[in-house]
Amino acid sequence: MTQQLKAFMKENIPVVEKRMNELVEEITAPEILKEAMLYSLNAGGKRVRPLFVLAVMNHFNVKDDAAYTVGAVIEMIHTYSLIHDDLPSMDNDDYRRGKLTNHKVYGDAFATLAGDALNTIAFGILARMEQVEAEKRLELIDKLSVAAGAEGMVGGQILDIEGESKQLTLEELEKVHVNKTGAILRFSIESGAILAGASEAEKAILVEYAHHIGLCFQIQDDILDIVGTTEQLGKTAGKDIASDKSTYPALLTLDGAKEKLHAHYQLAIEALEKLPSESNLLKEFAEYIVHRNK
Amino acid sequence: MTQQLKAFMKENIPVVEKRMNELVEEITAPEILKEAMLYSLNAGGKRVRPLFVLAVMNHFNVKDDAAYTVGAVIEMIHTYSLIHDDLPSMDNDDYRRGKLTNHKVYGDAFATLAGDALNTIAFGILARMEQVEAEKRLELIDKLSVAAGAEGMVGGQILDIEGESKQLTLEELEKVHVNKTGAILRFSIESGAILAGASEAEKAILVEYAHHIGLCFQIQDDILDIVGTTEQLGKTAGKDIASDKSTYPALLTLDGAKEKLHAHYQLAIEALEKLPSESNLLKEFAEYIVHRNK
Repeated sequence: MTQQLKAFMKENIPVVEKRMNELVEEITAPEILKEAMLYSLNAGGKRVRPLFVLAVMNHFNVKDDAAYTVGAVIEMIHTYSLIHDDLPSMDNDDYRRGKLTNHKVYGDAFATLAGDALNTIAFGILARMEQVEAEKRLELIDKLSVAAGAEGMVGGQILDIEGESKQLTLEELEKVHVNKTGAILRFSIESGAILAGASEAEKAILVEYAHHIGLCFQIQDDILDIVGTTEQLGKTAGKDIASDKSTYPALLTLDGAKEKLHAHYQLAIEALEKLPSESNLLKEFAEYIVHRNK
Repeated sequence: MTQQLKAFMKENIPVVEKRMNELVEEITAPEILKEAMLYSLNAGGKRVRPLFVLAVMNHFNVKDDAAYTVGAVIEMIHTYSLIHDDLPSMDNDDYRRGKLTNHKVYGDAFATLAGDALNTIAFGILARMEQVEAEKRLELIDKLSVAAGAEGMVGGQILDIEGESKQLTLEELEKVHVNKTGAILRFSIESGAILAGASEAEKAILVEYAHHIGLCFQIQDDILDIVGTTEQLGKTAGKDIASDKSTYPALLTLDGAKEKLHAHYQLAIEALEKLPSESNLLKEFAEYIVHRNK
């Protein structure tokens, strides 16, 4: 990781994490519910999605405190999806990022409800961002709802579960990931562009970048499941092979998956080159996504 | 039920139901997910919440097609909460309104996700109501998020589960219901007032009416669990006593609960009398809530 990216993360991650905590702590709700929401919000993670919001703002040289709120909201949606994904009725995972999953600590009912509460609060927080003009807030709510819902993340999760019982083609596998993880990642990047007041042309370029970054992210995830260790990943390594899951390495071999990863990385970089001004930080981000080892 | 109220329901319920179906059918999402969402949306129900939106619009003599959309959205939120409440990790109900519950048909994972998708889509639909001014859309999203989330419905569900293992006081029981079922009912009535352009004073009066109506609704629910039959209710009667649940009849005796019901009915009617113009329909609605037998 470059010094610039490292400094950028070091500066911004604590601000996003503080914002998430404040936004939950300030509400009037049963303490155990707030505790369950905060448990998973504070269980670590790379904070890639909020960082993308901020990196896009940085590219446009716009400083706006609202970006931290939008980043925090996206992390809440991401966290709710992890809590529900980990439930016994879904992936049945006991550990996430090296810590017990939400339902292992609070039970299945409270975990379901903590996820529901994070999903619901996200939209209210966006609606109340008074420093952002009304039309932009509505655009953010509209697009987050599409990205997180049946047309995006939740739809992708359905496809993923349906795919467990059969061998997916490469095209089907890509569709799972473009929805399940890609849609929120694209929203992260697009929301930064919306807040920064980017042109429609710039937004389209950034969404193209985001599409390829999303696929890079997933392919590297699949590769790490094979080459990583449980300790390094903070979750059980080798789970995909053990469950005979359709993954990029399973479909393309490990080397084929690495080639595919590199191809999408190149396409992400090529997208960035179409922007009117250079974006070193977004380039470095692409490199980080491709080379990360956890 | 009066002829006026009967005619009002007959006219409006089909429009709300058609709107819900259109809003889900038009999205691009896995067919099985849309089917699961529609299964519970179309599983019947009294449609009390959307009818309240429309009854308030009627009181102010305002016709606005957006009221059907807001009503449909509230019914989606209500439906998602029922799907999650029925899950084995929560109430573990096999039947709802005489039909198999969502997870009995689609499995626990898909039921969880169908609920998530209904919760998420609701906010996007409100954001996209272009015929409603931006500030009103944001107010609706803000208030729905509070009513449905940790500060309202989800928080109430947590209190309800926590209360299962102990004897609640009347005050604690009221707090459960003011949140679990009351918050969305209040939002239904308030959203009609927002759409109709009611004054802050009128909104406050209607929220007071809604508060008492919400409690009437719950007390009658508790009473029906004792005096109703499984066939009539479409769900297992006598479940509260069997599970030793804290209810109004359990705390106050059946006669005491009936008195409490009548007291809240009176307070709801008194609230209405403070409005500048008479509202027969809202009065008749209160009577219907109190006298319903399912």
